[in-house]
Amino acid sequence: MTLAEKILSKKLGKKVYAGDTIEINIDLAMTHDGTTPLSAKAFKQIADKVWDNKKIVIVFDHNVPANTAKAANMQKITREFIKEQDIIHHYFEGEGICHQVLPEKGHVKPNMVIAGGDSHTCTYGAFGAFSTGFGATDMGYIFATGKTWMKVPKTIRVNVNGKNEKISGKDIILRICKEVGRRGATYMALEYGGEAIKNLKMEDRMVLSNMAIEMGGKVGIIEADDITYNYLKNRISEKELLTLKKNRITVDENEDYYKVIDIDITNMEEQIACPHHPDNVKPVSEVSGTHIDQVFIGSCTNGRLNDLRIAAKYLKGKKVHEGVRLIVIPASKSILKQALKEGLIDIFVDAGALICTPGCGPCLGAHQGVLADGDVCLSTTNRNFKGRMGNVNAEIYLSSPKIAAISAVKGYISNEE
Amino acid sequence: MTLAEKILSKKLGKKVYAGDTIEINIDLAMTHDGTTPLSAKAFKQIADKVWDNKKIVIVFDHNVPANTAKAANMQKITREFIKEQDIIHHYFEGEGICHQVLPEKGHVKPNMVIAGGDSHTCTYGAFGAFSTGFGATDMGYIFATGKTWMKVPKTIRVNVNGKNEKISGKDIILRICKEVGRRGATYMALEYGGEAIKNLKMEDRMVLSNMAIEMGGKVGIIEADDITYNYLKNRISEKELLTLKKNRITVDENEDYYKVIDIDITNMEEQIACPHHPDNVKPVSEVSGTHIDQVFIGSCTNGRLNDLRIAAKYLKGKKVHEGVRLIVIPASKSILKQALKEGLIDIFVDAGALICTPGCGPCLGAHQGVLADGDVCLSTTNRNFKGRMGNVNAEIYLSSPKIAAISAVKGYISNEE
Repeated sequence: MTLAEKILSKKLGKKVYAGDTIEINIDLAMTHDGTTPLSAKAFKQIADKVWDNKKIVIVFDHNVPANTAKAANMQKITREFIKEQDIIHHYFEGEGICHQVLPEKGHVKPNMVIAGGDSHTCTYGAFGAFSTGFGATDMGYIFATGKTWMKVPKTIRVNVNGKNEKISGKDIILRICKEVGRRGATYMALEYGGEAIKNLKMEDRMVLSNMAIEMGGKVGIIEADDITYNYLKNRISEKELLTLKKNRITVDENEDYYKVIDIDITNMEEQIACPHHPDNVKPVSEVSGTHIDQVFIGSCTNGRLNDLRIAAKYLKGKKVHEGVRLIVIPASKSILKQALKEGLIDIFVDAGALICTPGCGPCLGAHQGVLADGDVCLSTTNRNFKGRMGNVNAEIYLSSPKIAAISAVKGYISNEE
Repeated sequence: MTLAEKILSKKLGKKVYAGDTIEINIDLAMTHDGTTPLSAKAFKQIADKVWDNKKIVIVFDHNVPANTAKAANMQKITREFIKEQDIIHHYFEGEGICHQVLPEKGHVKPNMVIAGGDSHTCTYGAFGAFSTGFGATDMGYIFATGKTWMKVPKTIRVNVNGKNEKISGKDIILRICKEVGRRGATYMALEYGGEAIKNLKMEDRMVLSNMAIEMGGKVGIIEADDITYNYLKNRISEKELLTLKKNRITVDENEDYYKVIDIDITNMEEQIACPHHPDNVKPVSEVSGTHIDQVFIGSCTNGRLNDLRIAAKYLKGKKVHEGVRLIVIPASKSILKQALKEGLIDIFVDAGALICTPGCGPCLGAHQGVLADGDVCLSTTNRNFKGRMGNVNAEIYLSSPKIAAISAVKGYISNEE
């Protein structure tokens, strides 16, 4: 059985396999300021009270602080829903991006079935959870009943092996996106494993799971291990951690995969996704020298503490190139606080970077760095679709924070300090 | 003669009086990302080269980082104009608000005649300069010729006397706004003086000059003195400072004022401007207890280092009220750097405030804290017109940073810790 099949089977108390249609209880449901209002509206057509006010988490991250009266009104509706339904776990503007806040605050645990009103809900697969995104109508139904239905997905197994100091989680996932393609994993589970994944920190594993959706993937699962449990150590109770370890779901060598992909990173270059899709990936040497107007370091993909530390390493004592705007947005308030403590924010400001409130920032083109006609942006985010950052006449490249920081100083895409 | 008459006369080399129509050379012209494109367009209809590329300052502050593709494109046009005309003094996004950057970088000096493509250009009157705002067509003409014409304004003299520890520059100017009224100084100079003004730091003096326009004032002038010269000390050359001191323009007791207003602050309460105009001013006790949804500390009025220090004093170790969003935006990068150094940013973040890139922020309703329907905001800015912060169905109160900080913790307007 695949990890997806095992997690769903355990939850259902019976064995289910790819292709089976199931109804399943949700352990955790998440919506944000962008998706709560419509989800709440759908919910109200079928129920008055949410199924469990302790199993819903609502995060303000998409348009914070509010960039338009419309966004402010949507946040107002969200605030009222939180109050009316007594949603215990809510994080208002400034607390950070949902996909960082939920793991950080101990809401995400292995073996869980998680439903989120955001396409990148697949991020939590990094914890060995079955976690996927739903539209507002589905989220409304989940709010009301705590259940949803789905087809158990087929699984593409991705084995990543080899060692390579210069390669980050982002480089690995971009390489995988190239291999699988934008529609290659539609309605499938991606299961990431192998030596190189085992060596990744949770932060980098989250990058891999985060971008499963860019290949059409329903989930991007990584087997829980000691690195997972260590991350959870001070976030959940000791008792719960012990139970999780006892119920650990592991990978079998098996024949149940739809497809197996093997990638060796030993001699791999850093990877760059070129306009206008995350699977249009090239080794950095092929795009090195490309002029850039803006660099964004942040988002639910690469706005974590380790990402900021790496960026700061390459920006310390340097100045952002005069022709470049560098925007740095920590993915959460606790990351911002730690970055302040470690002097990372000082390094960014001294280098000439613009710091904004923890949140999604310019990733979705709403504000905080919308592109001009003809602009070229290098971004650590997950999507470079035409118009993604607010302008269809601009181009977006995707990279790791290291490449982003180096390039911000150079004024063009580069992996050479 | 009034200060306005004296400054203009000195510049012209002949005595001019209120009511005279004059043509005058401009010492310094300023536009920002919001007004450069139209000014440049007007300029290009009459000339190819600006009259003096060292006398123009361009600052990116109104929509930074760009909040829409339109704003990004305006900034692109502004960048191209800077390059094409070789504008030496330019400050890209993140450097701060024009009305802080220009004084801070030593561009503003006593006796100067300054024209700015922004209504709050009157701020520089705090340095004993004749400084006023123009529309884009006028700025285009100034870019081309270095000249403009105007009528020498009549002057309202405002004497502020008494001592009162709890009163800030903002309280004084709100009290003056109440006295003079929104149209009471239309096309006039305001001349601020008296014991209480003499005791104010430059930061607080700038607040007074900044809000001259809220009474229709063309300028808000304060006589240059040792406090002015001290501010300039490390910003301009010693030689220039000596020349300025030698050419000091002082106030005469005279009969040339259109009107004289006397205000004693000795027993004055802190002042609050109520919706929807800066002259709708009440003592804090009359509005104390008013529920608030958002607080903004920042802007060209009150986003300076001293403002942040005061706000931090009242926020240290406290938490912003759950129902309130507190947005804090330093007025310039150098203020942000110093605030980082002094631990003020840590205090704000710990208290739950949202920090954004130095710039105008939500003051003009473009982004970074647009209000929702029914929201009440307490703001340290200069304008509380209906719709100013992006929503005509919201209300804005104006106060000092002290009141803003105290109220953010309380959840309602208050001057009591």
